[in-house]
Amino acid sequence: MANFELTREFVDELKLLIENQDNESVSRVLEELHPADIAELYEELNMDEAKYIYFLLDDDKAADMIIELDENDRLKFLKALPSEVIARRFIDKMDSDDAADVISEFDTERQQEVLSYIEDVNVAGDIVDLLNYDEDSAGGLMAKELIKVKENWSIPTCLRSMRQQAVNVDEVYYVYVVDNNGVLKGTLSLKKMLLSPVDRHVKDIYYSDVISVGVDATSEEVSNIMTKYDLVALPVVDPVGRLVGRITVDDVMDVMREEAEKDYALASGITGDVESSDSVWLLTRARIPWLLIGLLGGLFGSRVVGSFEGVLDIYPQLAFFMPLIAAMGGNVGIQSSAIVVQSIAAGTMGLDSPFRRLFKEFSVAFLNASVLSVLAFAYNYLIGSPDALTLTVSGAMFSVVIFASLFGALVPLLLNRIKIDPAVATGPFVTTLNDIIGMGIYLTIGTFFYQMLV
Amino acid sequence: MANFELTREFVDELKLLIENQDNESVSRVLEELHPADIAELYEELNMDEAKYIYFLLDDDKAADMIIELDENDRLKFLKALPSEVIARRFIDKMDSDDAADVISEFDTERQQEVLSYIEDVNVAGDIVDLLNYDEDSAGGLMAKELIKVKENWSIPTCLRSMRQQAVNVDEVYYVYVVDNNGVLKGTLSLKKMLLSPVDRHVKDIYYSDVISVGVDATSEEVSNIMTKYDLVALPVVDPVGRLVGRITVDDVMDVMREEAEKDYALASGITGDVESSDSVWLLTRARIPWLLIGLLGGLFGSRVVGSFEGVLDIYPQLAFFMPLIAAMGGNVGIQSSAIVVQSIAAGTMGLDSPFRRLFKEFSVAFLNASVLSVLAFAYNYLIGSPDALTLTVSGAMFSVVIFASLFGALVPLLLNRIKIDPAVATGPFVTTLNDIIGMGIYLTIGTFFYQMLV
Repeated sequence: MANFELTREFVDELKLLIENQDNESVSRVLEELHPADIAELYEELNMDEAKYIYFLLDDDKAADMIIELDENDRLKFLKALPSEVIARRFIDKMDSDDAADVISEFDTERQQEVLSYIEDVNVAGDIVDLLNYDEDSAGGLMAKELIKVKENWSIPTCLRSMRQQAVNVDEVYYVYVVDNNGVLKGTLSLKKMLLSPVDRHVKDIYYSDVISVGVDATSEEVSNIMTKYDLVALPVVDPVGRLVGRITVDDVMDVMREEAEKDYALASGITGDVESSDSVWLLTRARIPWLLIGLLGGLFGSRVVGSFEGVLDIYPQLAFFMPLIAAMGGNVGIQSSAIVVQSIAAGTMGLDSPFRRLFKEFSVAFLNASVLSVLAFAYNYLIGSPDALTLTVSGAMFSVVIFASLFGALVPLLLNRIKIDPAVATGPFVTTLNDIIGMGIYLTIGTFFYQMLV
Repeated sequence: MANFELTREFVDELKLLIENQDNESVSRVLEELHPADIAELYEELNMDEAKYIYFLLDDDKAADMIIELDENDRLKFLKALPSEVIARRFIDKMDSDDAADVISEFDTERQQEVLSYIEDVNVAGDIVDLLNYDEDSAGGLMAKELIKVKENWSIPTCLRSMRQQAVNVDEVYYVYVVDNNGVLKGTLSLKKMLLSPVDRHVKDIYYSDVISVGVDATSEEVSNIMTKYDLVALPVVDPVGRLVGRITVDDVMDVMREEAEKDYALASGITGDVESSDSVWLLTRARIPWLLIGLLGGLFGSRVVGSFEGVLDIYPQLAFFMPLIAAMGGNVGIQSSAIVVQSIAAGTMGLDSPFRRLFKEFSVAFLNASVLSVLAFAYNYLIGSPDALTLTVSGAMFSVVIFASLFGALVPLLLNRIKIDPAVATGPFVTTLNDIIGMGIYLTIGTFFYQMLV
């Protein structure tokens, strides 16, 4: 299979086939496609076309496709189907983690209804267990399906049991070794199994240095551990060390991508998870909250500037450099908050104390502020600005850059300390505050120099 | 092994052990640590301490640790070692992709020298092959080590060959099936091998719908494909379809993280890959370029504002709302560029034409602009601002929001068209331009209303 790329022509041709009710041709097209491609295709179809296609898919592909759909599209699509169909045709065919993810999007009543149609009580039980965990925790990410063997088994017993267990598991990356109480002892790599003679016992060949997480670990901790130690699967244990599930790397990649997109969106003043293909209404709703905060801040800023009406009346040139000072405060603040936010997210903060970190931020700010205020001074000197203006712009540039740097670094550190996602600090919030305070500093310094020198 | 967390106390204790030359205790500590943890530890040690520890590590752990080090730390550390030691102790123990990554950081002369000390000419040849590929391409990401079997083999032949090949491969995720010319035909999953009877042939049980990429695919394409299709390894083929390597998910997770960090850094006006633990000098160097652009833009903006000196002289209140208008232009511009940049990076642009996309951006901007200008109008009306000021602020708010939205969306689309990373568009570049143009719009509208109404 070549890699599929969705094109307008492909969608139009398929829509035509659907319109002509050409079941055979549509089925042939679908057979060639990966569930992830069909999910992509779904976003381009209307509900009737989507349903038409859904009836032509075999059960496994239909279940896989549903998982790949965007949350909004999935809810819309599943709403149109009876609970029994959802249980039998989708949930039953999914891994427990995907099943729990899909079911968790329903309201409680619908959840009960769907669960009641699942025949195997163990499957339903697993899903109910997983629904109890927070979505952003290791428990919420893990699947119950895994292959485990006991440490005192012989290799042939082990192989026999693995063959039975493998039927329920999508992919086998590691085989987990537990003791008689179900406590995780280690892993058996498939490579090791390929290379080992058969007259051994599990306990002779397993690897005991296994890295695991507790069910309550955050998804960020999970993704940092899996990235740091290059793991494709991570076992999850309960508080007494019993193996309760495993997290696979594909789920973590999704988490990483979402985390990165969320941080990026927050830094850009967008709330929620939107894409340029979303509706005008969704896009507007994601953008307006921060703009309103910006408006509020800006209106408050206009009062701050207005309180300097006296000096602006007499020396209107002071206004020329207001946008410059505001912009530099904003830029510097975003930079320092972004560096802190990124280091917190990647777990690379190093061992410096908060005090040392701020001192370092001050050193960087001092260098930047010196360069920028000398250049601003040179510019005003060269174009022959009045002395008071030259000194005001340079002085304010220096103070604002230092202040905005420290403020930009401090806010995410504080937010992190009180367990709020520091990423909100890089957004319009810090920028807006820096703008207002920057204007205050600039015009205060301006008043001082103009009163002294003019 | 519990998850290790580096603490100041741990580092201090270890430094004390090193100072006392307590080989035995240090070795015992190192034995407990994962190579990734030792790499983290290295960043806290000085060169003498780092070397001391290095001599106590066994070869495999030393090689793994070197790969996990930060690029700067690695270069500094390897510079102090002779080429022969680097070749024998590190390069020889690494997978070909890691070896090529490490060697590519040396200058050409040192590369030659290190390669000449590698005994196995096949190993050296693999590394030389990999060095030819661009670092950010599938060829640059792949390793040569993989397990392949021929489609016409029987399962026992296949198992025997796999056992031999497995010795050289770190982890086995998939076994690749090739024809007699080495052309990739499909994969054999380990699960399938566990479940299949032994009297079959490879061609009866392999999965032919294999997803692969060409050596020239970009690292972004690779990570999008692996995320979309949930793959833990992706085979790489040459232009005629022969299997030349495989990319594993851990390398792609690193790429994803770097890409996300780079985009985030660019959006925040930081060039290059810095962390808050880097030196003051590195941090300043990463931040000053964008600040200089901001300064230049701001100074130019002061000329624009200055050219309206006449109207500001007469109506200094116009200055009160300059920071508000500038900030809103900046905020809106960042939002729309961020949405476009993120959709391009994630490959979720959908099938809309650029024209339709801009029309949609216009619709969103129209909604936002209406809300914001009505609120600004209400505010000025309520506090009793002069009519000319009220109309100017509302009118400029409306125009600036619409302009900045379209401009913010257009720039990354254009950059992407001419193959420049659109992420640069979310940074201070677009913000600064929006500031200047916003001021021009605001003061032009202001001049108009004041001449008409006052």
